[in-house]
Amino acid sequence: MSKPLILVVNDDGITAPGIRALVEAVRPLGDVVVVAPDSPQSGMGHAITINKPLRLHQVDLFEGIQSYHCSGTPADCVKIAVDKVMHRHPDLCVSGINHGSNSSINVLYSGTMSAAVEACLEGIPSVGFSLCDYRHEADFAAAAHYARIVSQQILANGLPKATLLNVNIPQLPLDRIQGVKVCRQAVAKWEEEFIERQDPYGRNYYWLSGNFVNHDHGTDTDEWALANGYVSIVPVQYDLTAHHGIAHLNANWKL
Amino acid sequence: MSKPLILVVNDDGITAPGIRALVEAVRPLGDVVVVAPDSPQSGMGHAITINKPLRLHQVDLFEGIQSYHCSGTPADCVKIAVDKVMHRHPDLCVSGINHGSNSSINVLYSGTMSAAVEACLEGIPSVGFSLCDYRHEADFAAAAHYARIVSQQILANGLPKATLLNVNIPQLPLDRIQGVKVCRQAVAKWEEEFIERQDPYGRNYYWLSGNFVNHDHGTDTDEWALANGYVSIVPVQYDLTAHHGIAHLNANWKL
Repeated sequence: MSKPLILVVNDDGITAPGIRALVEAVRPLGDVVVVAPDSPQSGMGHAITINKPLRLHQVDLFEGIQSYHCSGTPADCVKIAVDKVMHRHPDLCVSGINHGSNSSINVLYSGTMSAAVEACLEGIPSVGFSLCDYRHEADFAAAAHYARIVSQQILANGLPKATLLNVNIPQLPLDRIQGVKVCRQAVAKWEEEFIERQDPYGRNYYWLSGNFVNHDHGTDTDEWALANGYVSIVPVQYDLTAHHGIAHLNANWKL
Repeated sequence: MSKPLILVVNDDGITAPGIRALVEAVRPLGDVVVVAPDSPQSGMGHAITINKPLRLHQVDLFEGIQSYHCSGTPADCVKIAVDKVMHRHPDLCVSGINHGSNSSINVLYSGTMSAAVEACLEGIPSVGFSLCDYRHEADFAAAAHYARIVSQQILANGLPKATLLNVNIPQLPLDRIQGVKVCRQAVAKWEEEFIERQDPYGRNYYWLSGNFVNHDHGTDTDEWALANGYVSIVPVQYDLTAHHGIAHLNANWKL
């Protein structure tokens, strides 16, 4: 029997420390192939590249692991991996480990999660991992530990149909993490505040900035779990239909 | 009493014919402000711009309508409109009219829909409109007709909490459209096929290409409605939690 085939992708780019930690975390679990962006792609959401062609180059960055970098977005990386790199259907796609949280509403903006969503659309069991630590010196050890455990569970038990996982790991050493909670996405948002500056020619430009505000007081959310020292696992779907809204519109609208 | 304040955005860029049709469709309904990308942004998904600053310039493209173009993504346009352009909370955000379908799984890749999702996150009732016609000579008249009707309904009746609308209009003249159906997102996907070419220096490059495949035989989907001559309205949410997956993981996984 062949070993499981595992695709590794991320959004921070192929040279980021998080993808190295993830490759080492899943290396004992199967045959690993890496296809990752050639430059950082944070905040790319589910962007795909349709107005220019893509480049794909084999590189030698991880000992004994077939690796490629691609000029596209995280979602592009998964698409081109499936069509041009992998010679059989992967058994698992792992994305990350992202340098920074993708909890709550950040799932929408996250390139890490869009890669995992794209893999799920391709019928590949998939998961995105993110470490809630933006510092350059962030330690990925605890995140890698949980990445291996969750990956093993997916390979052993599978996932519900059309469902992937969004896993966030708190900024704590391994021995201070309280365990794992399966959660719902907290109702939280970014309150924007653009920072206005002037260029040397007197013209304005704007930096996107903002504050993350959690309005959700539930104890079953990813934000609660992370704030209380747990690893959060949110099962995620790509059906965006607000099913309750169908009856509401049919009852209340004249169309 | 002041007139409703309506924000118009798109992803095809401020010079696209679809946004002009949309501005004219909603002009009689309130005070209209346009903030749209300065270049085409199709396929940008929910991308935001965090690695470079944004530019925002007032332009004079629509008679009597305050208009700006922005160097960012569709989601950026909504964020900067709310923070820097609008002096009160908009009553409605309309996005489009997109040049091409955003039905089914295309909602994930769509810049048109990500702008509407972003507005929904900001608490603004919002809707994305797309015309299922990719041709340069596409006629936006029927789409504009339904854009006005749906916008009037939202202003009159509101929308369920945290819900926006994805409206697609079939490629038919107005008198051949059968009516409007409220639908769920069809379970369909793109099957990728990258087209491989060589540049003048002998190096490979790849164009993303593919075929849209609808595996969903339901008659309550957007694909069914569009194929049968109806305008499709899918209520959309930004909570991606697969709620049924929470109990499944808690029951079946050892964590």
